Amino acid sequence: MNTNRNYKNLQDSYLFATIGQKVKAYTATNPDKKIIRMGIGDVTLPLAPAVITAMQNAVAEMGVPETFRGYGEDYGYEFLRTAISEYYIKKGANISPSEVFVSDGAKCDVANILDIFAAGSTALIPDPVYPVYSDTNIMAGNKIIFTHGNEANGFLPMPDESINADIIYICSPNNPTGAVYNKEQLQKWVDYAISKDAIILYDSAYEAFIQDDLPTSIFQISGAEKCAIEIGSLSKTAGFTGTRCGYTIIPHTLERDGMSLHKMWSRRQSTKYNQLPYIIQRGAEAAFLPDGLAQNKKNIAYYLQNAKLMSETFDGLGIRYCGGKNAPYIWLKCPDGLKSWDFFDALLEKANVVGTPGAGFGSQGEGFFRLSAFGSKENTIEAMERVKNFLK
Amino acid sequence: MNTNRNYKNLQDSYLFATIGQKVKAYTATNPDKKIIRMGIGDVTLPLAPAVITAMQNAVAEMGVPETFRGYGEDYGYEFLRTAISEYYIKKGANISPSEVFVSDGAKCDVANILDIFAAGSTALIPDPVYPVYSDTNIMAGNKIIFTHGNEANGFLPMPDESINADIIYICSPNNPTGAVYNKEQLQKWVDYAISKDAIILYDSAYEAFIQDDLPTSIFQISGAEKCAIEIGSLSKTAGFTGTRCGYTIIPHTLERDGMSLHKMWSRRQSTKYNQLPYIIQRGAEAAFLPDGLAQNKKNIAYYLQNAKLMSETFDGLGIRYCGGKNAPYIWLKCPDGLKSWDFFDALLEKANVVGTPGAGFGSQGEGFFRLSAFGSKENTIEAMERVKNFLK
Repeated sequence: MNTNRNYKNLQDSYLFATIGQKVKAYTATNPDKKIIRMGIGDVTLPLAPAVITAMQNAVAEMGVPETFRGYGEDYGYEFLRTAISEYYIKKGANISPSEVFVSDGAKCDVANILDIFAAGSTALIPDPVYPVYSDTNIMAGNKIIFTHGNEANGFLPMPDESINADIIYICSPNNPTGAVYNKEQLQKWVDYAISKDAIILYDSAYEAFIQDDLPTSIFQISGAEKCAIEIGSLSKTAGFTGTRCGYTIIPHTLERDGMSLHKMWSRRQSTKYNQLPYIIQRGAEAAFLPDGLAQNKKNIAYYLQNAKLMSETFDGLGIRYCGGKNAPYIWLKCPDGLKSWDFFDALLEKANVVGTPGAGFGSQGEGFFRLSAFGSKENTIEAMERVKNFLK
Repeated sequence: MNTNRNYKNLQDSYLFATIGQKVKAYTATNPDKKIIRMGIGDVTLPLAPAVITAMQNAVAEMGVPETFRGYGEDYGYEFLRTAISEYYIKKGANISPSEVFVSDGAKCDVANILDIFAAGSTALIPDPVYPVYSDTNIMAGNKIIFTHGNEANGFLPMPDESINADIIYICSPNNPTGAVYNKEQLQKWVDYAISKDAIILYDSAYEAFIQDDLPTSIFQISGAEKCAIEIGSLSKTAGFTGTRCGYTIIPHTLERDGMSLHKMWSRRQSTKYNQLPYIIQRGAEAAFLPDGLAQNKKNIAYYLQNAKLMSETFDGLGIRYCGGKNAPYIWLKCPDGLKSWDFFDALLEKANVVGTPGAGFGSQGEGFFRLSAFGSKENTIEAMERVKNFLK
């Protein structure tokens, strides 16, 4: 019997596990120090009142025979698929409810979507990158070509005609850099994907943070319905990191290799998945209705205010960075040419602030550092004071 | 670009979709007839009060900053893994919390577990079978050998030394037949798996229905820690079909091909999954605590009472059947040598009762029929009266 030998090609230690160990070790020897965590991108504000109310009602329904629900509709309840469809239509993206597949998160969908492509496909992945993109392709035995994000291109790699790929990953606003593609740039990617018979996997997990006039969906780009799958999430939009809801949008018109990708994903999900809990789907619906949208917008504004403070701090220190304006991440250049893990250690020891070293996101991340804006306002203010004192 | 061509080998029409269409068509032309549904195995009793209370508290926690939770622990919260571990220890199966992986359902785990095995592995699957086992192996490009369940072996196939397989599926109590392996039979399967260097995937979704002195876990069998993975579910045990919670148990000692399967599943889940919602995990925990266990036991007794009535009905009619004693399914032989879809049509038209034709579960299902005991007592009584009148 053989196991999946591709797993041997994975790196052993996971980035955030290593960070956790270092912080644990430091805290053990410095128990009096107050550590401010700006590393892992996890939200801190509670769920919106409209979401809480919706879920409380749904829990009550599940305790009564007349309103109890068993197995849900295959691709998510129509009430939720409709709410998501309307969210997209308001953005000028013509998505119908039947093109929406509800799930328990963008991470799961980004990983599982590879099931419908042939093993050995070529994935075009940005570097620096969210580790799930690369790890899942390694597990699938796929070939990976990295496109480089760097200061020269504003961490927004553009298509290279000489490269051929099957699956193109675009995350905009980007994790970890916070960089955001504009319409012209995305149009170039869509045109490239069509010319290469490739599929774009568009991760829009952070689209709700966009303030400027920038695309919030790949389906705002002409031709995207011929080459793109979009994967969205309520994790950051509505604070659902511990509540779980994502969605994958596949246009009915999307075909490759003579196959309808919508039909393939339908088959994959109806065979391997049994949908999101009813209670959670009601909570997610509330997040897309007017009250929930307004409440979550306030939370997002709160996080963006943190990001603004962080941006101003680094502006004042003359440290170059990306992000912070249309995303909850600041991607800063390590001062004095420090390597990212060395800067991590120094920041932890001298300022008692935890961030994420850029090298953890790929080769192009070396010399850079990610700080997240999901903490409390008070902690963010304090963290920035400490950083200023440390770096002067 | 190539899609996963294995999908072309899947059957187009899904069993329960076809049933749904036939019922819809009949109802359209006979709107006055009251249809009693005993086809799909979905629960009808509401969630236990202890589960409802736990989830209401958890929803409230998620609305307050001090108790709000973001990303959960990687393999499930310790409180839930511990509750599941204790459930197993009470059954005489020595499982530690760190060997428990929480998920949103046995269906997902049974499907996704194939990720850790090599593509092209050989799966030994019982026929008749829960379609997910065979479909997911087709999707993975695996080879399938079917072992036959039939009247001669009481729908409990036993090992055939001349057959070599990598992955052995055992579902006990069985869906669709309701047959249950005894200890000696499972010991033979464990010994066989060890001798063939194979892994048993043991689906224990219906173990809570066992009344007689029969195994309720593969880990009650000597040597199972060297060859088995068990996948359990709260769907039928606690009515969680629309609430979602399952768990996969992998002993630390389980190795194949020089790899720790526990480590591989850990890597798969931490990379491709982001855990079950906190709210649902608190509900699941309550299902494993004394009050929840007692309340769910009552619900299971209710369904088993239905099954008993159904058994007595078929005893009285002289119709042979399997199940109904330690499982919520009755697997009956179609009367008069009718083919299963013909019996489906006749039962729908003459008795207005919906069941599931055995042919939908595989070649060995032809000539058999599944009825589920998850309905209300009143509907079950009425359905059995109609069946008696129809078959006299």
